[in-house]
Amino acid sequence: MSVKCRRWVLKSHFSGMPKREDLDLVEEELPPLKDGEFLCEALWLSMDPYFRPASAGLALGSTMMGAQVAKVTQSKSSKYAVGDLVVGPFGWRTHTNVPETGYESGDLSTYMAKLDPTLYKDRESTALGVLGMPGATAYCGFLNLCTPKEGETLVVNGAAGAVGSLVGQIAKIKGCNAVGFAGSDKKVEYLKSLGFDEALNYKTMGSLSESLKKACPKGIDLFYDNVGGEWFENVLAQMNTFGRVAVCGAISQYNATEQPKGHYVSQLILGHQLRVEGFLTARWLEEWPKAFKQMSDWISEGKLKYEETITVGFDNAFDAFLGLFSGANTGKAIVKI
Amino acid sequence: MSVKCRRWVLKSHFSGMPKREDLDLVEEELPPLKDGEFLCEALWLSMDPYFRPASAGLALGSTMMGAQVAKVTQSKSSKYAVGDLVVGPFGWRTHTNVPETGYESGDLSTYMAKLDPTLYKDRESTALGVLGMPGATAYCGFLNLCTPKEGETLVVNGAAGAVGSLVGQIAKIKGCNAVGFAGSDKKVEYLKSLGFDEALNYKTMGSLSESLKKACPKGIDLFYDNVGGEWFENVLAQMNTFGRVAVCGAISQYNATEQPKGHYVSQLILGHQLRVEGFLTARWLEEWPKAFKQMSDWISEGKLKYEETITVGFDNAFDAFLGLFSGANTGKAIVKI
Repeated sequence: MSVKCRRWVLKSHFSGMPKREDLDLVEEELPPLKDGEFLCEALWLSMDPYFRPASAGLALGSTMMGAQVAKVTQSKSSKYAVGDLVVGPFGWRTHTNVPETGYESGDLSTYMAKLDPTLYKDRESTALGVLGMPGATAYCGFLNLCTPKEGETLVVNGAAGAVGSLVGQIAKIKGCNAVGFAGSDKKVEYLKSLGFDEALNYKTMGSLSESLKKACPKGIDLFYDNVGGEWFENVLAQMNTFGRVAVCGAISQYNATEQPKGHYVSQLILGHQLRVEGFLTARWLEEWPKAFKQMSDWISEGKLKYEETITVGFDNAFDAFLGLFSGANTGKAIVKI
Repeated sequence: MSVKCRRWVLKSHFSGMPKREDLDLVEEELPPLKDGEFLCEALWLSMDPYFRPASAGLALGSTMMGAQVAKVTQSKSSKYAVGDLVVGPFGWRTHTNVPETGYESGDLSTYMAKLDPTLYKDRESTALGVLGMPGATAYCGFLNLCTPKEGETLVVNGAAGAVGSLVGQIAKIKGCNAVGFAGSDKKVEYLKSLGFDEALNYKTMGSLSESLKKACPKGIDLFYDNVGGEWFENVLAQMNTFGRVAVCGAISQYNATEQPKGHYVSQLILGHQLRVEGFLTARWLEEWPKAFKQMSDWISEGKLKYEETITVGFDNAFDAFLGLFSGANTGKAIVKI
């Protein structure tokens, strides 16, 4: 029996804010399974800000990138059985023929795994969030690059997002002072409910520099940057000696058609002896299972909370993607098929 | 017998290019030596670009900062004998009463040591250069922060200076490809004579971005930045994945009255997964002796060369200082008293 697949295809590379007409929604028939392949049906699509810059490297006509949680519905693989749940880099598509050795796509991460039922017993969608790539991004990026010490002050922006909300909570678990910035009063309340010491609505707080000073009277030791732009120079200017910066994202710049300008930061990095490091989380792929196990334990112990913003319907994937740039999501943005 | 001391005093903090009238040259009588003190007479003064930003932290009326090589002429210390040569943070002064336990000044480094005659047998002035703070800056900064691997490409600017000229040579010793930028054709010739693979006159080469591309066709792995400003964004834009940047100086910005602007660099740091770290070399004080020993060996083996630009006369110290910002020096700038 033939299998129909629907998928979102990149028709033109984004320029400025992504537009619906940059993508096509197409339907096609999948070829029959080959030996060693399995067919899976998408249950959940991950929506992540990195698609915006990373899609510049996708060939036109490619399926839009991203991880999904899917269920195996046919199998010619001895490793994957019908009924298995998998997470993989299959992109924005409803059905996929997947070689058991891994799926080739233009995505940054090729992480593919069967979902361990002991970790994903509550919600399989967490394989795209707290116990998936965004969770690994928060855990590995923060611990490896910010190297937090008890009593230090962390600033994280995009703090109510999939990654930022975890970074602040991990900082608290490690004994740090967590200061988070988000884009609505409701998100600020959410951050406070997570235990952030300070949370501010960047849209209404006024001067960034003054707000940082007030929120961090002892200066800033750790900066986990999801936003870039003016945040970069303003936070760096208030960092303490030997401060550490993990550059995880620059969402404020992704859709800019003309790159904004600011003051050169090298003298700040020099004078405060800062260490600033950018990363893509796939570099720590071998640490991901440890991160998931630890965060799963923290969830069970009530120390780590997560949120999901769910958009229903494969046809609404583009709207969910756009929502990432308008601040529509609290926690992890996902699409339920 | 009373001892007269002459010293350069900070009268007003520099604004823009330092002016002669920002400093006073005063003469005063030193108090008699106390127990545990020695009197020393300056032979050589170090002239370093960092005085410019660091002097902003000096109280008005202070002696201008900096290291000197001096000879002990009187002593009430059991550790320092008349005739000993010392290096210490005594600043721009001809005579100094120094407690044997160390000299308090507003300098960034409080390094004080008797000159080991096996290391400084050729030229005592090297205690201010290749076998002193600038040497440690090159050696520790480059090896600890750029962590060079064989075959990697280094870019260093201010490459004919006290630090840059050593960084390029150490990179060659470590098997790297060394690309240096300096401000005159004569300096470019000097860099080539030191073994730099590429050397360019930044004043005449035209587009910085294009020149970097031509000089580094395989991209840039390591950047040792002495200059800052537009260098920072242009080099970062051409760095390879996992590139390392040591931010040692920002001489292009030290005298700016209005800080120049450029593109935000956080997205470059993110996309290329760069590690950027600023440093003051005093953080590795315990590694300095090892660095001096190694570099002294390299000098003996003919692998490391150094140059000094000598200004004669204590009264000409200010001119020597200004020369740092006009590119007057090749190698280490020093004043011979």
